[in-house]
Amino acid sequence: MDLAVLDAIAQAAGAENFSAGLPQRLLYASDAGKIGGEAPLPRGVARAVDTPQISRVLAVCHCHGVPVVPRGAGSGLTGGARAVGGGIVLDLAGLTRILSINLADQVAVVEPGVVTSDLQAAAEAVGLFYPPDPASVGFSTIGGNVAENAGGLRAVKYGVTRDYVLGLKAVLMDGRVFRVGTRTIKSVVGYDLTRLLVGSEGTLAVITEVTLRLIPKPEAKVTLSALYADLDQACQGVQDVLKSGIVPTALEFMDQGTLMAVEGFAHLGLPLAARAMLLLDLDGPPEVVTRQGAQLAGLLAAGGGQPVRLAQTPREALELWSARRAAGPAIYQLAPNKFNEDIVVPLGQLAEMVRRLERVGVERGIKIISFGHAGDGNLHVNIMHDASDPAQLEAAHQAVSDIFAHVLALGGSLSGEHGVGTAKLGYVGAEMDPVALELMRGLKKVFDPRGLLNPGKLLPPE
Amino acid sequence: MDLAVLDAIAQAAGAENFSAGLPQRLLYASDAGKIGGEAPLPRGVARAVDTPQISRVLAVCHCHGVPVVPRGAGSGLTGGARAVGGGIVLDLAGLTRILSINLADQVAVVEPGVVTSDLQAAAEAVGLFYPPDPASVGFSTIGGNVAENAGGLRAVKYGVTRDYVLGLKAVLMDGRVFRVGTRTIKSVVGYDLTRLLVGSEGTLAVITEVTLRLIPKPEAKVTLSALYADLDQACQGVQDVLKSGIVPTALEFMDQGTLMAVEGFAHLGLPLAARAMLLLDLDGPPEVVTRQGAQLAGLLAAGGGQPVRLAQTPREALELWSARRAAGPAIYQLAPNKFNEDIVVPLGQLAEMVRRLERVGVERGIKIISFGHAGDGNLHVNIMHDASDPAQLEAAHQAVSDIFAHVLALGGSLSGEHGVGTAKLGYVGAEMDPVALELMRGLKKVFDPRGLLNPGKLLPPE
Repeated sequence: MDLAVLDAIAQAAGAENFSAGLPQRLLYASDAGKIGGEAPLPRGVARAVDTPQISRVLAVCHCHGVPVVPRGAGSGLTGGARAVGGGIVLDLAGLTRILSINLADQVAVVEPGVVTSDLQAAAEAVGLFYPPDPASVGFSTIGGNVAENAGGLRAVKYGVTRDYVLGLKAVLMDGRVFRVGTRTIKSVVGYDLTRLLVGSEGTLAVITEVTLRLIPKPEAKVTLSALYADLDQACQGVQDVLKSGIVPTALEFMDQGTLMAVEGFAHLGLPLAARAMLLLDLDGPPEVVTRQGAQLAGLLAAGGGQPVRLAQTPREALELWSARRAAGPAIYQLAPNKFNEDIVVPLGQLAEMVRRLERVGVERGIKIISFGHAGDGNLHVNIMHDASDPAQLEAAHQAVSDIFAHVLALGGSLSGEHGVGTAKLGYVGAEMDPVALELMRGLKKVFDPRGLLNPGKLLPPE
Repeated sequence: MDLAVLDAIAQAAGAENFSAGLPQRLLYASDAGKIGGEAPLPRGVARAVDTPQISRVLAVCHCHGVPVVPRGAGSGLTGGARAVGGGIVLDLAGLTRILSINLADQVAVVEPGVVTSDLQAAAEAVGLFYPPDPASVGFSTIGGNVAENAGGLRAVKYGVTRDYVLGLKAVLMDGRVFRVGTRTIKSVVGYDLTRLLVGSEGTLAVITEVTLRLIPKPEAKVTLSALYADLDQACQGVQDVLKSGIVPTALEFMDQGTLMAVEGFAHLGLPLAARAMLLLDLDGPPEVVTRQGAQLAGLLAAGGGQPVRLAQTPREALELWSARRAAGPAIYQLAPNKFNEDIVVPLGQLAEMVRRLERVGVERGIKIISFGHAGDGNLHVNIMHDASDPAQLEAAHQAVSDIFAHVLALGGSLSGEHGVGTAKLGYVGAEMDPVALELMRGLKKVFDPRGLLNPGKLLPPE
């Protein structure tokens, strides 16, 4: 890319919104994916200001064949914001306006850079509720959540980001601006481009405005936890809850390794002999969740949960959740590096998957730590290793392969929330039907015939 | 199409599964859309037997350039199963096997010809629940429901067909068989072809197997109704319920015209002075729905509902629903023909839309009857007329145009459930962004480059 092209992009972006300086390029070279090897440096970074400017930047890049990597907070975990194909990064994090929240329509219209927790707070301030709640809620953006179809803690009851996206404004790589979807709950006019863009990892279009469904804010919440001396009983506990007819907001699982790491890190007084812990939230009208909480506590205790704790105050609920919240940072005590895979299996296969994870750890001589959204069959599996030790690194890679093979054998999927990005490209072919893959390549060409928008992500190279 | 081609298709289908006789062709010329003008006769009808046979039939048709119209029960309301492009009808209604219902996974795998109520019954027999509940539930098929993204009565709480489709097996027009999606609750591997096929009106691929999410069966249900002397109060009642934090299973609206027609038809003792009626179902644990029912009854009474009736027995609940169920047939008393439009507006615009519908009726001198899924902002608007009277027919067409203009001005969508088919082709351009429309044409070409699968539907001609 010669300097004249960079100049043209800078002019399209506005000089004050473009930088090709090394510090900026370094800053935008990585995302939270922590993928090994040297991070590819983008040639420059354009700061998005509004839709017309984004359109100009994309059109200029399209004309000069410059790849563009759309980026929100950079909190993605699969390398989706890395400039592996060269080109520039388009930083959408500055588009932070909540354009409207309409109480009667129960709809919010936001720019893509709005941080998810900011939208949640704004909705709750008027008695509404934005349910998707990824772990990154405090820093990830709505645009990124839409691009990845983010899930999170409340998906058991409320579903994922896709279930709240009603409409989108977006820009094609050639600069054309378009709208899809509606601000109505239902619509069946034309192909569902809205849901096609959700989860497309920034490879089809740059999203510049999101119309989201909100729901009434639940009045109350109760939290309960159950410890288990037996792993199968814990998994059975998940099944028992799912069959109870009571739909928990969250239904989280932590294995023994997670509990031990958390205890070593945060000293919460967790019994180290416990093989697993379940953690549940229920929300709704106060008298309903109180009774349902007691009912589920009884169910879990009858199934071997010991002790089962039902939080009596918000502070107690926070205490119960502190173990889960500490899990992410805590497990870094076990090893300097982790591969974090967010596998998902059919609900009935959770126990079998957990058993197989243990076996892979033993067979590969490596620590595998699992916690996550058991109520969705979606586990965050952490393959802990020291990447500076070639043998450990090799064993960790082998463990990932083993685990993915087990996931697919059980009818599961390689990613429930994190997406493919660059991290899982090598495994996509094992899950995806070859004809479906060919159709996906065709769809990509319809939106981005020159393959310039976030290249090298989601679809394996032809 | 010469006879040799028909022979080749018959051979691919199996001679016993193909007919080019006039009675068969006439039988498959129409669907429930009741679109005016002479119904286009297909050249023949192939009865689908299994995926390999469907693949063979499609491949032969593809090779000879013969259009194929996939058809379930033919219960669609927008002409989606009419052979407007010529060619043959592929009848999938015979593929009626429920292949599996897995209690632990909460998943059903079914053939496309399974009648929706048969799946509901099979799920409920094992304590599970298939929520989508279109009015045609007793005869429409799952394949058709998926192709149209059917909604229905329980969408307020449970969403639409899309929300239950986890995976699909399908055949492209060129005969290639493929699978998309998973049997897990979540998956973000690749573009979401599953949801792209949902609502694609049989224009992208022929669906031959559907993997559906089931949920635990709600234990109990309560029904309540409220009559209103004031239309605005009824619409406000809808808003009050939606804001209450209690999510009804169904929240239906009937206007005065509907009530009068129903009373004239079914003699239920409805007060003819009532301007509108709301009808609600709540489901869940018995003690919860009992209390929530009482709470909503109080809310509706406080907002002017008079009387508000809370059904005390299943029989009383059936009685309350009988008015709604009679609405469809009853309104044919008012005129021999109707245009049935299933418009949808943002929730906050329902009252305004209802007012505008009244105005259009007065201005065009035509009877407009509305009832439907108020909790989704989705109204079934019936423009009653006598099609044999050219002036009335013209007024009815004008009324449709007026109504669609109002819907779009209020931020709504032309169809919440019925789809575009052939019936709404002329209006699609008014709702759809031209760039989005071009993208949709591109997607269609990826799946069906020769434009042979259900041509003349969903997308207006270029």
